[in-house]
Amino acid sequence: MKKKVVAGIDIGGTNTRIGLIGQDGKVLIDSNIATDKYPTVEGYISAIYNSIDLLMNNPNLSACELTGIGIGAPNANFHTGCIEKAANLPWQDVPLKLMLGEYFPNLKIKVTNDANAVAIAEMVYGKASKLKDFVVITLGTGLGSGIVANGELVYGHDGLAGEVGHITAVPNGRNCNCGRQGCLETYVSAPGLKRTVFELLANSTEKSLLRNSSFEELTSINIHAAALENDPIALQAFEITGEILGRSLADVVAFTSPSAIFIFGGLAEAKEMIINPAKEYMEKYLLPCFKGKVSLLSSELGNKDAGVIGGAALVWKDYI
Amino acid sequence: MKKKVVAGIDIGGTNTRIGLIGQDGKVLIDSNIATDKYPTVEGYISAIYNSIDLLMNNPNLSACELTGIGIGAPNANFHTGCIEKAANLPWQDVPLKLMLGEYFPNLKIKVTNDANAVAIAEMVYGKASKLKDFVVITLGTGLGSGIVANGELVYGHDGLAGEVGHITAVPNGRNCNCGRQGCLETYVSAPGLKRTVFELLANSTEKSLLRNSSFEELTSINIHAAALENDPIALQAFEITGEILGRSLADVVAFTSPSAIFIFGGLAEAKEMIINPAKEYMEKYLLPCFKGKVSLLSSELGNKDAGVIGGAALVWKDYI
Repeated sequence: MKKKVVAGIDIGGTNTRIGLIGQDGKVLIDSNIATDKYPTVEGYISAIYNSIDLLMNNPNLSACELTGIGIGAPNANFHTGCIEKAANLPWQDVPLKLMLGEYFPNLKIKVTNDANAVAIAEMVYGKASKLKDFVVITLGTGLGSGIVANGELVYGHDGLAGEVGHITAVPNGRNCNCGRQGCLETYVSAPGLKRTVFELLANSTEKSLLRNSSFEELTSINIHAAALENDPIALQAFEITGEILGRSLADVVAFTSPSAIFIFGGLAEAKEMIINPAKEYMEKYLLPCFKGKVSLLSSELGNKDAGVIGGAALVWKDYI
Repeated sequence: MKKKVVAGIDIGGTNTRIGLIGQDGKVLIDSNIATDKYPTVEGYISAIYNSIDLLMNNPNLSACELTGIGIGAPNANFHTGCIEKAANLPWQDVPLKLMLGEYFPNLKIKVTNDANAVAIAEMVYGKASKLKDFVVITLGTGLGSGIVANGELVYGHDGLAGEVGHITAVPNGRNCNCGRQGCLETYVSAPGLKRTVFELLANSTEKSLLRNSSFEELTSINIHAAALENDPIALQAFEITGEILGRSLADVVAFTSPSAIFIFGGLAEAKEMIINPAKEYMEKYLLPCFKGKVSLLSSELGNKDAGVIGGAALVWKDYI
């Protein structure tokens, strides 16, 4: 009998990563295509098909059989298999499951949003394998979340639950891409951190390395580097970001009382710079009955792999 | 064979209601004891036992057999069967299941918090019988919540999930009994509405019937009556309360994406006065992908009965 593999696909605004994953969660082989280089969604889907086909034809995998495809994508709906109203992709709405299904009519194809895919990876292969109630927060261009309660991912009635990035962190606060104001991700995300730096540069007179960068030039990586050199503005920006994150995590706990919260993604690479203030302020803002009970951890799933592994885990979950 | 009945108990700060409930959710007979009149918790539990015993000995129920006890109480933990750190009861911590179990060693006894009990009543006997994802918000002295996701009540890892009354609605806002600041229930609850009236009386110069009442005298019932007479301060207070509720419900939707939210409890008696602005502002603040999808309904479970029916439904749920 041939060894079963699942294709895990991690769709991002600029890059789409495709990997073949064994039952143990290991990436056997992978490739990338540029999401934003395809003028039509049909061409993009065809490129995904070609990539999977190429990977499967690798001589090292001749004893393998493709058994399913699992996809993590922004604004992807588990119930409908569609990307819906995506702000950061070339196409707003994509009937992903349907379109890929035409290329792979006999395969199990599952779709969920990227943060849910990471939550499933934590559940199947990560530190959450024994947890029934936990939350994954992904920090990058935005703030995504995957909520697990009673051992099940919370998809909500329409498949779109887990938009913690769009709870109101500051009433009448910063404008968000979604059209609302004060959304958590306008403060806690890579661009949110940058906006906080610019607010501090405007309000304070302190010297800072960051006064030499334009808004377009500055990145969360520069800010992290400056913070490591004790730049006061960079340090304050992380402190403020951690406070707003911590306060909102206290709200997350008040909702579903998870035993652990995993922080994942680009901005989470700043590790203790963001995790430490978030922990401190989460504890400060927690309702007394929850204090001292919730672990705030940085995910150990590799940033590069978690998306494809999570996508594949969506399918493997039904077999394991 | 004898007809099975379940005792439903609804524990409040001043009153405890005990009812015997048939499988159809009908209250067959009931009685009340004064929670705050017992100097010891042992005496109080003994009084509950006596009440159940008296009810069961009613000649009309001679063909009935008691099969279980279900209890809704503030700060009650489903997993441990204890009341934990209750702020509004004469006793902070009560091992309810254990203590009642000594009187009824052979009965199934289940405990949950009062808002969860209402959610279960909606699920078993109310308008939520076909819903897999919904939320109940109880508005009274505080703001309680019961969250149902994937058809299951969300208890969290410690049995204490669903504290939506203690999410931060206004950063650094009003002091809350819980020790935090800006909790949703300091704005959206009967005392919250009163605090908003007093803020408006302080800030505005408008005439109002409510200028004749002291803080101690004023109740949400008076404010509702004044609003029905078009008192401008009372109307504004409801509008502000509805806005903060609506904005926070938009956060609730971002978390678990329920198809419906049921509003229940004393303050919910003000019906459209609170529901209408809450609906309007919830829609305004919802993330675009959720707009127009969530029903905001006032619960049709009678205020008087829902607690005991919900308590009993905790037990009946396993049989139906």
